Amino acid sequence: MKEMSDTATLLVWCPDQRGLVAAISDFVFRNGGNILHADQHTDIEAGMFLARVEWELEGFEIPRERIGERFRNVACNFGMNFELFFSDRPSKLAIFTSKLPHCLQDLLLRREAGELQADFALIVSNHPDHREIAEAHGIEFLHFPITPENKARQEAAELAALRERGIELVVLARYMQILSPAFVAEFPNQMINIHHSFLPAFVGAQPYHQAYQRGVKLIGATSHYVTTVLDDGPIIEQEVTRISHRDTVEDLIRKGRDLEKMVLARAVRLHLRHRVLTYGNKTVIFD
Amino acid sequence: MKEMSDTATLLVWCPDQRGLVAAISDFVFRNGGNILHADQHTDIEAGMFLARVEWELEGFEIPRERIGERFRNVACNFGMNFELFFSDRPSKLAIFTSKLPHCLQDLLLRREAGELQADFALIVSNHPDHREIAEAHGIEFLHFPITPENKARQEAAELAALRERGIELVVLARYMQILSPAFVAEFPNQMINIHHSFLPAFVGAQPYHQAYQRGVKLIGATSHYVTTVLDDGPIIEQEVTRISHRDTVEDLIRKGRDLEKMVLARAVRLHLRHRVLTYGNKTVIFD
Amino acid sequence: MKEMSDTATLLVWCPDQRGLVAAISDFVFRNGGNILHADQHTDIEAGMFLARVEWELEGFEIPRERIGERFRNVACNFGMNFELFFSDRPSKLAIFTSKLPHCLQDLLLRREAGELQADFALIVSNHPDHREIAEAHGIEFLHFPITPENKARQEAAELAALRERGIELVVLARYMQILSPAFVAEFPNQMINIHHSFLPAFVGAQPYHQAYQRGVKLIGATSHYVTTVLDDGPIIEQEVTRISHRDTVEDLIRKGRDLEKMVLARAVRLHLRHRVLTYGNKTVIFD
Amino acid sequence: MKEMSDTATLLVWCPDQRGLVAAISDFVFRNGGNILHADQHTDIEAGMFLARVEWELEGFEIPRERIGERFRNVACNFGMNFELFFSDRPSKLAIFTSKLPHCLQDLLLRREAGELQADFALIVSNHPDHREIAEAHGIEFLHFPITPENKARQEAAELAALRERGIELVVLARYMQILSPAFVAEFPNQMINIHHSFLPAFVGAQPYHQAYQRGVKLIGATSHYVTTVLDDGPIIEQEVTRISHRDTVEDLIRKGRDLEKMVLARAVRLHLRHRVLTYGNKTVIFD
Repeated sequence: MKEMSDTATLLVWCPDQRGLVAAISDFVFRNGGNILHADQHTDIEAGMFLARVEWELEGFEIPRERIGERFRNVACNFGMNFELFFSDRPSKLAIFTSKLPHCLQDLLLRREAGELQADFALIVSNHPDHREIAEAHGIEFLHFPITPENKARQEAAELAALRERGIELVVLARYMQILSPAFVAEFPNQMINIHHSFLPAFVGAQPYHQAYQRGVKLIGATSHYVTTVLDDGPIIEQEVTRISHRDTVEDLIRKGRDLEKMVLARAVRLHLRHRVLTYGNKTVIFD
Repeated sequence: MKEMSDTATLLVWCPDQRGLVAAISDFVFRNGGNILHADQHTDIEAGMFLARVEWELEGFEIPRERIGERFRNVACNFGMNFELFFSDRPSKLAIFTSKLPHCLQDLLLRREAGELQADFALIVSNHPDHREIAEAHGIEFLHFPITPENKARQEAAELAALRERGIELVVLARYMQILSPAFVAEFPNQMINIHHSFLPAFVGAQPYHQAYQRGVKLIGATSHYVTTVLDDGPIIEQEVTRISHRDTVEDLIRKGRDLEKMVLARAVRLHLRHRVLTYGNKTVIFD
Repeated sequence: MKEMSDTATLLVWCPDQRGLVAAISDFVFRNGGNILHADQHTDIEAGMFLARVEWELEGFEIPRERIGERFRNVACNFGMNFELFFSDRPSKLAIFTSKLPHCLQDLLLRREAGELQADFALIVSNHPDHREIAEAHGIEFLHFPITPENKARQEAAELAALRERGIELVVLARYMQILSPAFVAEFPNQMINIHHSFLPAFVGAQPYHQAYQRGVKLIGATSHYVTTVLDDGPIIEQEVTRISHRDTVEDLIRKGRDLEKMVLARAVRLHLRHRVLTYGNKTVIFD
Repeated sequence: MKEMSDTATLLVWCPDQRGLVAAISDFVFRNGGNILHADQHTDIEAGMFLARVEWELEGFEIPRERIGERFRNVACNFGMNFELFFSDRPSKLAIFTSKLPHCLQDLLLRREAGELQADFALIVSNHPDHREIAEAHGIEFLHFPITPENKARQEAAELAALRERGIELVVLARYMQILSPAFVAEFPNQMINIHHSFLPAFVGAQPYHQAYQRGVKLIGATSHYVTTVLDDGPIIEQEVTRISHRDTVEDLIRKGRDLEKMVLARAVRLHLRHRVLTYGNKTVIFD
């Protein structure tokens, strides 16, 4: 199989108008780029254009440090918003965790398997339990115990730690603290949570207990960007699995772990590959 | 393949205690019955025992008209509640429908295919549109237009029609009127609705529009027994299907139709085969 | 919601090279078209480029009867193969059927529901059973009984009937005759079959019986373009459903009907919307 | 929630006849047992009766070491075959592994999470790579390099090691050696393999490559008891996931890992909880 070269990826969004696809693809072509993936979505009702274009850097005539600047000229003509990424510049990532290890362990094993191209720079927890896991994977571990009294102070310390390390994506891997709106606002569309229900069903605490009480026949998990409204951010991925009357709450929790792991991992992978664009409270997934 | 003889089915529920399975199976065995299916569920937390036993009538020594009376003696010793059904005595069924034909047509085609063993006695609608479909299938059609003014009177007329025909199961096949609590109370665990969402998400009107607004990645359908609380009755069956940002509300409605048809048909089939037991606000499905 | 205007759709395939997306989108843009959907796939291993572009005809400066000719100039420069379709020129379709009605009825009900934009011109059967269904839907019905002796002659007559009516898509809706290679060759990538198994498992006759014997835990259905090798053509869509040891062969057949209906309908819809491109023995689905 | 006491589980199979359920449940009841789960399946075509009954040992009047002997009297009257298990006597398990770690790691993490009640006594590999994983989990690791020349000798050594440790279940967690018929014959219905395809599709080597070549739209995984015919043993569990033309063979391998992990873990869990009965080449799953 042909070796993949490094690639550049543009995410573009703006009001819909004629010539957008042509302008983007022409920019790539004129400068000697070979498009590997081009995908586009027009939300006719909202009048929005959203696109993702990925091309090989090999043979591209613009040096990578000037691509953004050069594309800005194109973007200005159409009022495009855009982001530019390079496949050999992986995102810096921090994982927040509490006591449940399964999502953390799952992400770390997928990293080992080469599924998640990212710089796993930091693990943050309000409990000391997972320090050993972090160390076994050679990742820095910071313990910030949270109480009602120290919460604001600790969040400030966490934020400082994230900034210092240049963290670009925060993954809440069953982190059981609710982060303050100010903290959340620092990571717009850059903080991914896993909620252990099929949202919007069973918002809030103990969704498996809620599901058990309601007698549903399927349970789910939802990964979403965190916003200041609890469990209400743009949904990236969801999955469900079948349960029956034989399943106790403990069975739901057990079956749910598999959902949580997979749904969170898929969302993180999509984000890391720059395949998610958010508009309004919804996501476009370029897969 | 061996020809199936007619069968008797017992549904039994009571507080859990020692000897229940033995007592039921002994009753069948002592009287010469051959058990085809025996399934049982103990809800340990609730201390409830629920069971379903089906046996061949051929060779059974108690004449069928006396089986209920004879089993009552066993039941009394344990405080069992029970229901008794015979496979050659299909339930009498009425379908309520409005303007959308897909669930109605689907049920009628499944009847033709031999999937639903019931006496399809009546189709009721608040619109005249489906009279032709009813007639093509040789089923009586009654049109009861509903207005805020005539609603109570029309419900009384509907109820009289159902009673007169001895209807034992009412299927709401996308019937768009909310039935009054008094009407609902006439058919406890005998009225099945299809709601076009994954309950408890998107209760009430226009669930596909709600799903579109929320940006979910899966849509669902739920069949449940109707209670006096809207979309809150015991759930019999649920199913979901994947959607994407490319799907408009119209696409959701289209994809949802397939879910609605299948989920309603499965629930009706389970009910007609006496495979559903309700306790609290939940169902046990003996499949 | 904004009214959809009529659209043109280009399907393009050729060896991969620089500038393909730019050339196609530039063609649309320069001539005043607004792209609604643009999707592209590069098979890096095979060095193949495949794309689908759909744009609004309203405001497009080239009259529709000349679009193909004008695009041919672009295509020549790159060695592109292409097909051009207009949304207001639905394909002419014939359904072949035998004794099982469910796929036929399902397609006809979806047509009524507006899910399948096509000219349902003809129903062909080797049995007379479904004449009434055809007539109820106002579709011409031709009965060609097939025996080993008359098969070649009848196929010739069928082919003449299809040609005469300008049929562009043949749908085998559980048609139980194997068509001759010569017949198949007349409809390359224009004849869709539904096979009642998860291909390549259980090729040939009685796949549900085969599945029952093997003790699988899921059964499936597969829609594919027909080639001269039995059940071996490019797969368009597949789906599975769970079964258990409790399911008899009859249960498998019943559960399978739902799969067959959905999988065939999805494939036909994808084809009719020009969302399928075939290369090698595989399909690209632009959904 | 009520604390679960230890339980006894009977698996019973024999030709179908009147009185089987009554005899088993009467045995439990007469001796003071409380049945928690009773499930039964009659294969009418094959004339086979298969059942699983689980009851609380607390208050049961027969000492556990004599339950088998006492039930034998009941079994003899009906020609029943049976097996008896106790929930506080977990099975002894060995995992065979090669170079791919994901199934091994998954099983070990599920053990940590309390999902798999077993005595993980041994990890065997034809490569040294996973010694560290074994040690991190405190499990003995034996390395048996296999060559065509030493294969028979090494298998004999493996078998001796398994016997010495009283291994009752062998789990092939992506073990890449084919075991000899003689070795397989030592573990009838006690050796579980995970095959990375939806069997019977893509038997043998490189099923993901086969799936890619065939252009299927779903890939699967299958866990089954190992028999002397390759990939042909009784199937315990299967699952599939959707793929598209965008997925390379590497993507199939990545997506397949999730399937393999879940399908193998489910099968092992079912076996360890004595929920699987095999007859002919099929399984009955009492879940």
